[in-house]
Order: sequence, then structure tokens, then C-alpha cells
Amino acid sequence: MYDARPIGIFDSGVGGLTVLDALVRRFPNESFIYLGDTARVPYGTKSARTVERYVIQVADCLLHRGVKGLVVACNTASALGLSALHAHCQTPVLGVIEPGCRAAATLITKRADSGRVGVIGTRSTVASGAYPYHLALLNPRIHVVSLACPLFVPLAEEGWVDHPAVRMIVEETLAPLMDQRLDALILGCTHYPVLKSVIAEVMGPEIALVDSSSAMAEELGRYLGGVIVPAPPDQEQQLEFLVTDVADRFKEMAARFIEGVAGEWVKMVDL
Amino acid sequence: MYDARPIGIFDSGVGGLTVLDALVRRFPNESFIYLGDTARVPYGTKSARTVERYVIQVADCLLHRGVKGLVVACNTASALGLSALHAHCQTPVLGVIEPGCRAAATLITKRADSGRVGVIGTRSTVASGAYPYHLALLNPRIHVVSLACPLFVPLAEEGWVDHPAVRMIVEETLAPLMDQRLDALILGCTHYPVLKSVIAEVMGPEIALVDSSSAMAEELGRYLGGVIVPAPPDQEQQLEFLVTDVADRFKEMAARFIEGVAGEWVKMVDL
Repeated sequence: MYDARPIGIFDSGVGGLTVLDALVRRFPNESFIYLGDTARVPYGTKSARTVERYVIQVADCLLHRGVKGLVVACNTASALGLSALHAHCQTPVLGVIEPGCRAAATLITKRADSGRVGVIGTRSTVASGAYPYHLALLNPRIHVVSLACPLFVPLAEEGWVDHPAVRMIVEETLAPLMDQRLDALILGCTHYPVLKSVIAEVMGPEIALVDSSSAMAEELGRYLGGVIVPAPPDQEQQLEFLVTDVADRFKEMAARFIEGVAGEWVKMVDL
Repeated sequence: MYDARPIGIFDSGVGGLTVLDALVRRFPNESFIYLGDTARVPYGTKSARTVERYVIQVADCLLHRGVKGLVVACNTASALGLSALHAHCQTPVLGVIEPGCRAAATLITKRADSGRVGVIGTRSTVASGAYPYHLALLNPRIHVVSLACPLFVPLAEEGWVDHPAVRMIVEETLAPLMDQRLDALILGCTHYPVLKSVIAEVMGPEIALVDSSSAMAEELGRYLGGVIVPAPPDQEQQLEFLVTDVADRFKEMAARFIEGVAGEWVKMVDL
């Protein structure tokens, strides 16, 4: 038995495209509808109450289009809105936090029996405590150090990626992590992979960087054998992009986050 | 005849507090209600259609509270939403663009018969063409050079003000203006006064910086003799702060934008 319906995936804006990119490559017969809430981006500076409200509206928009599953490709939305979403709908919902934590925990177990994990994210994601909570569920002996990096999102969105000023900002922002003897660092925001090379340079080769997009592809793989029914193996992949603000800037920025697959078509929706 | 009612003033977030600060000092007997649309900040990266919709909702919220006039203390909202606002309500509405243009034009006239004016602002403000249009109305011989500086808002909001990395970003962003032989530079975003000293350093002492907050105080002075009836001279000033997202972060950031007057009380509203 197969289910040809698309999988819904959403983010506050363009960041989730790094996750979509991984899913599209890994599941070439699955179709996806991506929704970027570009009229209200960013979520990472906003409160749980507001993010919850936005997430429910975005999910409803995708559910009305008949998706068979929902991927929350935004750490802030996952950290603050996932429980509300689970309560709100029957469709399977995958957040981006647990897969990232599982990848980090697996990595740690390979290196040592316990370990020290850093988590960087938006102010709201860090304040939510979602990462330490889920890491402790997996391995209560992992020591977690969290740090908000609020400037990384605007830098990534504006394409300031390999500039000496960016290196200085990244260095100064990450300074509190430098003497923490970390084994791994979770990039707890879907924008951060854009800055991955400068973050890796600053942190040094000893520290493994965990990027949630490939972890999310693993997770969706597990779901597609279980609560989400896979598409027919020969189905041609369809991609649809929805945004809540006009599409021009989305298209321009999308090019920095996803290769090849964007630009099929982008449509505007009101929430 | 006096009118004791407050004046409404709004911005996408905290930036408009630089304008409120000027108005509160200049009109100590007038009361103000400030609304920061912190649930949907920033406006400067969003489209005209979306900003118009937000601006009307914000204005309605203030009008329902019985304000006698509306000050749009946000360049993007003024550039993109002012015509819609004028069509929408009978209450006098003041934008922040015209006063800044008038201040720049006056300054230019003192220096030379014609002149060259730079305008920096958000991407949306620059794209709107509102500054060149209003400057031309005042003096069609003024040559205008506009430049979007999208990273300045996050830098100001995060308090990155006097750091070498900020100096580098400001230098590189403003580079296209350096050989333009400008007489004046309009800070066309209410966040930018926070970065005024580094902008002044980079531009050099020859170029006069125009900050719209004092220009807005001039403009409101004119209106208070005319279409807006002033408060009784002995009225005790009341300040009220409304935000659309929770207040904690607003209070924290407000301290960087306004001195002494903030913190009376901040209340949350849904739009």
C-alpha cells in the first residue's frame, strides 16, 4: 500500500530549505510542499505564545492541502510549538530537535561513555531548554552547554558568509564555548549550516559539528516505514513552495540554501 | 481649547523609541501610547502588501484606544503604508520620511544651492523610492543616492555598537557612498541612530547626518498648532507601551533606545 500525498515541511523562512534539500535527495519519489512564513520571520526572537500561534496556523494551511505528514524544519518552531502541534492534529509531526539530539548522542557514545555537547541556536530555542531536555532523555550523563547566537541568522540571510567581520563575530559569539572541552556542537538552527565552515574553523577540528538536516532525513526514513505510508517507488517527485510574503526575496535567498531543486514554483498564501 | 487625549506612536519594534524619546522631551505635557509590533518585527525585509496590512491593524488598535493623532515612527511603515493609512482613517497621521527630507533639504540649502544627499535604510524602504520622491518635492535639484543596509538593524538590536567587526561591516556596507561627494546622509531607519557614532566616523566630518527623531519633533510641533489640538499646558505626561509579543525582551532592548522614560508599564495586545 502506498500513499502518493506530499509531505508538508515548514520553517519561519528560508532556513528550513537546508532540511528540504536533504529530504529531497534522500527520498526522490516523495513529493514535498514547503511553506516559509516569510511575512513573520524570524521566530527565533519571539515568545513561545506567539510562535505556538504561528505554528498552528502554518500547520493548518499545509493540512488543508492534504499532506500525509508534517516536518517542522525550524528549531525554534520545534522547540516552542511541537507539543501544541501534537495536540492540534492527528497527522504525524516530526520536529528537528530530537533527530539532532540523537545524532549527537550517537556520536558521543562512539567517542566516550559520557560526553560534553554544545548547542547553539536562536535566543528562543536556547531559552526553551528543549535541547538539554531531549539530550538527557537519550543519555542523562551528557553534559550540555547552550549558547544563543542571535546575529548568525541575519548574517546567513544576508549572505555574509566568508568575511573577516563574520569571522570576528563568530569568534566572539562562540568564545564562551572555547574552554568547555566539547566533543560535539549541535547547529541548533537551520540557518547555521550556511556558516558551517567558519564555525568549524573557529571551533577547531576536535569538535564534531552536528547538522540536523541529515539527521532529519534519517528520522523521516524511520517514519516512512511506520506511521507515514511511503509514496509509490516510481512516483515522480513534485515540489511546491508556499510563502506568506511576496516571493521575490525568497527566491533570491533560496539559492543560498538549496541547490538545484528550488524555483519550480513559488506561490503566496495568506495566514 | 485643549485635547487631553494621547498621541499614538508606532513602530515594527523598538526602533521608534528613538523618535518617542525626542517627542517626550519636546512635549512634556503630551501623553503617548507607543505600540511595537514585536510579534512581526522586522518590517524592513517584507513586501509593501504585507507591511500595509500590518500597519492598518496596528493603527486600528491605537485608534480604538482614542488617540488624537498617529505618528508612524518607522521608516519602512511610513514608506510603504502611509497612503493606505491616510485612506483608512480620519485621524491626522504623520510619517517619518517627510520630516527627515525637510531637515536634509534645509541643511542642503544652507550649504549650497543644490546638493547631494545619501539615504540609508532597510531594503524595503529603499525599494519604495519614498525618500527620492519626497526630496524631489522639496527641491528637485537635490541628487539622491540610496543604499540598503540590511545588517544595521540586527546589529543595533543586539547591541553590537562599538566593536571592530561592526566598524568593518559599516565600512563595507557604506563603501558605495564614499565617492559620491555627499553633503548629507539621512539615517532612514529609526534603528540607525544607535549606530550613529560609527556611521559618522566612517562617513567623515564633512557629511552631515540627518536623524529623523528631532525632525519628527519639529513636525509634530507644527501639527499641534494645527490639525492636532494640544494637551492642557499643565497636563501630567502619561506613557503607555504596547507590544504584540511578550514584553521581557522589549524592556531589555528599550534601554538601548530610550533613556529614563521607558519602563512605566508595558502591556501585551493581540492584533
